[in-house]
Amino acid sequence: MGYAVSGLATSTGKAEESIMSLISVEEFERLGREKVYVVAQFGFKAEYIEHGRAKMRAPFRQEFLRPGGTVSGPVLMSLADYAMYAAVLSMIGPVEMAVTINLNINFLKRPAPKDVIADARIIKLGKRLAVGEVSLFSEGEEDPIAHVTSTYSIPPDHVQVE
Amino acid sequence: MGYAVSGLATSTGKAEESIMSLISVEEFERLGREKVYVVAQFGFKAEYIEHGRAKMRAPFRQEFLRPGGTVSGPVLMSLADYAMYAAVLSMIGPVEMAVTINLNINFLKRPAPKDVIADARIIKLGKRLAVGEVSLFSEGEEDPIAHVTSTYSIPPDHVQVE
Amino acid sequence: MGYAVSGLATSTGKAEESIMSLISVEEFERLGREKVYVVAQFGFKAEYIEHGRAKMRAPFRQEFLRPGGTVSGPVLMSLADYAMYAAVLSMIGPVEMAVTINLNINFLKRPAPKDVIADARIIKLGKRLAVGEVSLFSEGEEDPIAHVTSTYSIPPDHVQVE
Amino acid sequence: MGYAVSGLATSTGKAEESIMSLISVEEFERLGREKVYVVAQFGFKAEYIEHGRAKMRAPFRQEFLRPGGTVSGPVLMSLADYAMYAAVLSMIGPVEMAVTINLNINFLKRPAPKDVIADARIIKLGKRLAVGEVSLFSEGEEDPIAHVTSTYSIPPDHVQVE
Repeated sequence: MGYAVSGLATSTGKAEESIMSLISVEEFERLGREKVYVVAQFGFKAEYIEHGRAKMRAPFRQEFLRPGGTVSGPVLMSLADYAMYAAVLSMIGPVEMAVTINLNINFLKRPAPKDVIADARIIKLGKRLAVGEVSLFSEGEEDPIAHVTSTYSIPPDHVQVE
Repeated sequence: MGYAVSGLATSTGKAEESIMSLISVEEFERLGREKVYVVAQFGFKAEYIEHGRAKMRAPFRQEFLRPGGTVSGPVLMSLADYAMYAAVLSMIGPVEMAVTINLNINFLKRPAPKDVIADARIIKLGKRLAVGEVSLFSEGEEDPIAHVTSTYSIPPDHVQVE
Repeated sequence: MGYAVSGLATSTGKAEESIMSLISVEEFERLGREKVYVVAQFGFKAEYIEHGRAKMRAPFRQEFLRPGGTVSGPVLMSLADYAMYAAVLSMIGPVEMAVTINLNINFLKRPAPKDVIADARIIKLGKRLAVGEVSLFSEGEEDPIAHVTSTYSIPPDHVQVE
Repeated sequence: MGYAVSGLATSTGKAEESIMSLISVEEFERLGREKVYVVAQFGFKAEYIEHGRAKMRAPFRQEFLRPGGTVSGPVLMSLADYAMYAAVLSMIGPVEMAVTINLNINFLKRPAPKDVIADARIIKLGKRLAVGEVSLFSEGEEDPIAHVTSTYSIPPDHVQVE
């Protein structure tokens, strides 16, 4: 039913036992479409969500381009933030009020006029904060176009949606 | 005709001599509208551009809101990046190919459903890199809602637009 | 007795009313010397501490130099972190367990073989987090050599030292 | 002769062909001891250096501790910077003048009073800039204690040491 259960490679290279994501791709997409403006605006799609990991796609649009024919930075930052949001919710459930407190992005190469894929991974989930990293790729390419680290604040009482 | 010439307070608190911006508000707005997608999409406005400094505004839209009734992070990041772009161009002229290589944002408080103003300032302009900071405010409020530092890469040969 | 009470210029350019620092230069120096290794190791000095602001100095040592004859990055990062610590304690008192959760540094120019001065300012003090920025200068120079933003975590119960 | 030649896992999960490091552990340790103050001061050791990857160790010292009995932030930042330096030199050779231009660190958990290990990996090597990430661990533990991303500036003409 849309819950991914495959293993998550941690930074130490070991596979964690499979734990179900606490939000499904379908739930997350509905939350995104209804509540998060940039998703509707930019047309982002959730590809998959595992426990502590999420992959999002920005299907290419002509309007994403900036001078030089490359996908603009704000599209990349928005997609990375959205992927982090999914990765956080996969571990704490559909808590709307989880918010970004820090995002640091390094742009690595000019993104070709193609779909962009963001692959987010939670590095550390604490009681109050979650830290993760996101690698961004142009469709079909191997070298990342951008790399993000981000910190989310988790509300003390996880009031879940609905 | 739109070039601001007033002094720029540097981090050491001294006023620099007045130097004209190398791009006018009108030129920058035209560049933005025609070439930068998020500007057209999000409706950002240039308020003023001085040498090494730029103020941009995101007039409030209902669609900017995220769960909790606050302006979403991507709107803030996009506006900050746009303000940095203007501040960089104010010092090097309308060089389209200046690109962000790093952006680090700290979100400080939940932004009220109001206009957002970004105030960007170049801290250091080198031959290859420019570093600046951007403070973001909700209209009419004193405490910043977010703080950004960002690095731009400046092309070796400043091929100017037109 | 060592408490600075002068005004603090905020990012909006207005002077806040004078509020006393909750830790004196003398108290902070004692805490530093006794408890923080790098202080003893690197010989950092507290110059002044106001409410929300602190200035620290790294008196020059030959051993600070890295290849090229410039002061090494770790000295700058350590001094910036120490200045942030002082600025945070100026607002919450001598709470030992306040810890850095994020530090982002941009190196702006090669630091001359001189004293380094770090000027830290709290941008936002929340209940759980404090965000500030630090400008670093070579003694007697105007242009900053590095710029830091940093986030501190404040323990829920401010158990004060002694 | 100390050159590691094993494969490097990239962010896309594929193993790159084995390419020799352009600096050996022995060469790097000599450069560190002779030229980089913190190495002598803090006693850092190079564990291994591959093409695009480096592992450094800070053997535990009582003086590393800060209030709370944890290893202090500056030790972690210095070790991470040193590991990045090694990872950069592994790809460009012993170029002394490669310098850090940005370092962003997220502290993830309080480091136990143990050796610290930093594992650095180059994400992108360009003509002028190298971007990498560093995961820091306490000896024998699986969860990282800190995560760093960093950008190095590479001098236009790689004048190599001797």
